[in-house]
Amino acid sequence: MDSNSRQIKQHNSRIKRGGEMEDKLLIKIALEAREKSYSPYSKFKVGAAVYTKSGKVFTGCNIESASYSPTICAERVAFTKCISEGYKDIEKIAVVGSDVKISFPCGVCRQFMVEFGEDIKVICAKSIDSYEIYTVKELLPHSFGPEDLQ
Amino acid sequence: MDSNSRQIKQHNSRIKRGGEMEDKLLIKIALEAREKSYSPYSKFKVGAAVYTKSGKVFTGCNIESASYSPTICAERVAFTKCISEGYKDIEKIAVVGSDVKISFPCGVCRQFMVEFGEDIKVICAKSIDSYEIYTVKELLPHSFGPEDLQ
Amino acid sequence: MDSNSRQIKQHNSRIKRGGEMEDKLLIKIALEAREKSYSPYSKFKVGAAVYTKSGKVFTGCNIESASYSPTICAERVAFTKCISEGYKDIEKIAVVGSDVKISFPCGVCRQFMVEFGEDIKVICAKSIDSYEIYTVKELLPHSFGPEDLQ
Amino acid sequence: MDSNSRQIKQHNSRIKRGGEMEDKLLIKIALEAREKSYSPYSKFKVGAAVYTKSGKVFTGCNIESASYSPTICAERVAFTKCISEGYKDIEKIAVVGSDVKISFPCGVCRQFMVEFGEDIKVICAKSIDSYEIYTVKELLPHSFGPEDLQ
Repeated sequence: MDSNSRQIKQHNSRIKRGGEMEDKLLIKIALEAREKSYSPYSKFKVGAAVYTKSGKVFTGCNIESASYSPTICAERVAFTKCISEGYKDIEKIAVVGSDVKISFPCGVCRQFMVEFGEDIKVICAKSIDSYEIYTVKELLPHSFGPEDLQ
Repeated sequence: MDSNSRQIKQHNSRIKRGGEMEDKLLIKIALEAREKSYSPYSKFKVGAAVYTKSGKVFTGCNIESASYSPTICAERVAFTKCISEGYKDIEKIAVVGSDVKISFPCGVCRQFMVEFGEDIKVICAKSIDSYEIYTVKELLPHSFGPEDLQ
Repeated sequence: MDSNSRQIKQHNSRIKRGGEMEDKLLIKIALEAREKSYSPYSKFKVGAAVYTKSGKVFTGCNIESASYSPTICAERVAFTKCISEGYKDIEKIAVVGSDVKISFPCGVCRQFMVEFGEDIKVICAKSIDSYEIYTVKELLPHSFGPEDLQ
Repeated sequence: MDSNSRQIKQHNSRIKRGGEMEDKLLIKIALEAREKSYSPYSKFKVGAAVYTKSGKVFTGCNIESASYSPTICAERVAFTKCISEGYKDIEKIAVVGSDVKISFPCGVCRQFMVEFGEDIKVICAKSIDSYEIYTVKELLPHSFGPEDLQ
């Protein structure tokens, strides 16, 4: 088990599952992940941390490309890590960019997230003490999802 | 002036600007644009039609790519046509995919649209007689927009 | 017929089809299209012009998005315009960005282009007098194409 | 240290660094990673494995989206994992999709890779015994890279 998952597990033995402390800890992990950001073009660093129902944590940061469109946001990096390791049971994700303003996922990330569940909680944060929580469904109402292609 | 813009202008000389007939006509134009869809992978044809405040109409269809991620949806095709011709005053867009279900833009398109105004009206249609209208803001609440990078 | 197509037609009545003058004219049209660029983030303006075997011209410019990944390059704007108007017989495309250096299409655009033919000529330009010509196949060797999904 | 990195390290204590056995082992790891593929739309599973100069291994699989354009290929998943964990010293990547034909990265992935070095080796494989090796530069000649935006 990696250290982030262990850290949340230890917290959770003392605090209630799914509570406020868990959300704050996930923001803290996203803040640390933000340090790895590769963003030479926008200079805008973003970090994210996914928490699965099975108790695993996966982190991400934004990674930019000179030609812009291949750029992958922090949220999608965290999601792809999680899914490619075999975990599709995503419960929530914390995202934090600017220190002066709450960061919300872009539409590309919302679309990517909805593929894995519109009830996933998105913790949109500025800091450990300043954040708002929405479901993917609230951030992408009337979504175009997997069922639309059938 | 192209024939689509002329068609709407003629209608508008008789009907009230911004009214229901205008929306239905825009859906009709989107339905025609859908025929040009290049969608050999999903077999899901989508059409779109943009209407600018200055009275111009631009159409689009979805264009897919074998490697999936370069795929461009109908809405973005219509938007890029409009903007690359020098028109940024987009008032509304109609989009229509399936004949059995109302189609909504994906998150990528919503993000692309918000760049040009969160008050743009999105006419999500199944047919000329079955559609729902939302603003971009309603479809992408708490958006990550141009001001977030400053 | 739009004015760009007419301009090339007129030239072509005097000059040989597919010759150097035609390429230079296509670069000139791409340079004009570049003026419409929406690139507030990179400040890097790019223009493109597609010429079809049937003699039609379609232009494009790059259109950026605050969240970077929805950004669409000039080449893809020109291609989608062309295809969504019903023309898939693309013969060549001219692209021009910087005035101090020849511009080449990014990998996303090369992948988008190969969908419509690896023999399409790409005129990579700095100005009317400074350019290099490659086929899509030369710019994207060993491509992943439509046949790979079968 | 994760088990994949350890596996290569153990091999490398016996075999020469950078040799054929190392490449075959990387293909084997990519084949295992392929199993995690989320590809309900194309049904085309792809796996990838990155090896850094510092001896770390990161894997990826393709993860698709119903709206196609947010789809992220196996190569980009492996790259983003690696970079977001703080490793930018990528030496090589193995990619394997179909069992009947060698798989090559798409143009989007080539563009994403070039950001981190045009000398990175790309092992394009069908199986452990059938593969070809190219540099990113060979797969994306005349690339549009970081220096073009300056």
